[in-house]
Amino acid sequence: MKLNAEKKKTTDSLFFAPNIIQNPQLPEAESMHAVKVLRLKAGDTIEATDGAGNFYHCEIIHPHPKNCVINILSTVSQPKTWNFHLQIAFAPTKSNNRTEWFIEKATEIGIDQFVPINCKFSERKELKIERAERVIISAMKQSKQAIMPQIQPMVSFEAFVNQPFHGQKFIAHCYDSEKQNLTDLYKRTENALIAIGPEGDFSEDEVQLAVANGFKPISLGENRLRTETACLVACHTIHVLNS
Amino acid sequence: MKLNAEKKKTTDSLFFAPNIIQNPQLPEAESMHAVKVLRLKAGDTIEATDGAGNFYHCEIIHPHPKNCVINILSTVSQPKTWNFHLQIAFAPTKSNNRTEWFIEKATEIGIDQFVPINCKFSERKELKIERAERVIISAMKQSKQAIMPQIQPMVSFEAFVNQPFHGQKFIAHCYDSEKQNLTDLYKRTENALIAIGPEGDFSEDEVQLAVANGFKPISLGENRLRTETACLVACHTIHVLNS
Repeated sequence: MKLNAEKKKTTDSLFFAPNIIQNPQLPEAESMHAVKVLRLKAGDTIEATDGAGNFYHCEIIHPHPKNCVINILSTVSQPKTWNFHLQIAFAPTKSNNRTEWFIEKATEIGIDQFVPINCKFSERKELKIERAERVIISAMKQSKQAIMPQIQPMVSFEAFVNQPFHGQKFIAHCYDSEKQNLTDLYKRTENALIAIGPEGDFSEDEVQLAVANGFKPISLGENRLRTETACLVACHTIHVLNS
Repeated sequence: MKLNAEKKKTTDSLFFAPNIIQNPQLPEAESMHAVKVLRLKAGDTIEATDGAGNFYHCEIIHPHPKNCVINILSTVSQPKTWNFHLQIAFAPTKSNNRTEWFIEKATEIGIDQFVPINCKFSERKELKIERAERVIISAMKQSKQAIMPQIQPMVSFEAFVNQPFHGQKFIAHCYDSEKQNLTDLYKRTENALIAIGPEGDFSEDEVQLAVANGFKPISLGENRLRTETACLVACHTIHVLNS
């Protein structure tokens, strides 16, 4: 009788394998985590997602620490938990941490697309997309979602307001002018694109240009919010109004 | 003709002076900021708040770096921008940063009271109240509010559920059981107390005890949220439902 028969292990971790169908193995960082950190062996099972709406129940075939080969045992598709398209356009904050915090939290709560914009008064003129994607992937895995929110490369404000968008478009700014609350203006179930400016606000020209391109000026409430707080408040407000 | 006549300065900073009426001077850290960092002089003007609902327009009389003496020129009271009482009870997260992030963001968005609770599966059994208060004061000043949210010393879960509360009480947990969405259960304009558990959730006993004490089990939506995200989502959901 074998007393210490090895049990097949499983794990609560969700792995990200975007090309799992064409190439049934884990990417390098995920292979490392599975094999070196969690010490998974051949025969152990894991859950993976392609970030495109599917979960895969998989068996580890070859636990290589760089290219862990897997076999898909079953597939479950998971639709989005919201039925509208939500984009937040934002000027990255001077502190990268604050932007990454917003990206993490919005991914947990639910967002379709991040649109970094370069504004006249932007404190930060570039955003490392790969780094932002790592934050997105980590938050997607942590919150057990199967759809990865997308992030655009940063665009100028002028290019941004001319991008096509099928739905309601809003711009939040701090100038004294006629503004309605997002909660009053937004029509349930419609797609929403909300632009939040930098620490120093949009310029008056930028607000005018946005309005000329169909954006409605909005207020997010009475309180003065930091840029990243305004971004998250806008995101969650749309979810609550649709609940 | 004097070419470099000194102009009287003012500043966008809001200063916190809780005892301004009894003792018209800035506390030590605020005096340091005014005198050493902003280099304000006698005759310069500042805005201060007592954190109890009042803004004070003040003139600096004696710019001492530890006890900056001021004279109140005028007072404006600012009522809360929401007309209900909102308490969030939470188990502090293992990472202090995540808890402090929630405290900062909730203060910006609007909250009346933070209630740290010690639960069976809490990863952190103590919270430094003074440090949390510094985060609250900083966020209050940054968002130009005149009312400082309160934070209780940490209490055991059992003591917490027995505290009196005049309003609706909710508990968010992850067990499979009958739960309604907070958005469906909460009645507009009513006071709300929402309890959010630790990373490892409330224990089943804790949930039962809460329900026996009038808490309604709720869901905050389809997505799995981190503790601090759930706290902020709960806070902002009540604001949106009241908007």
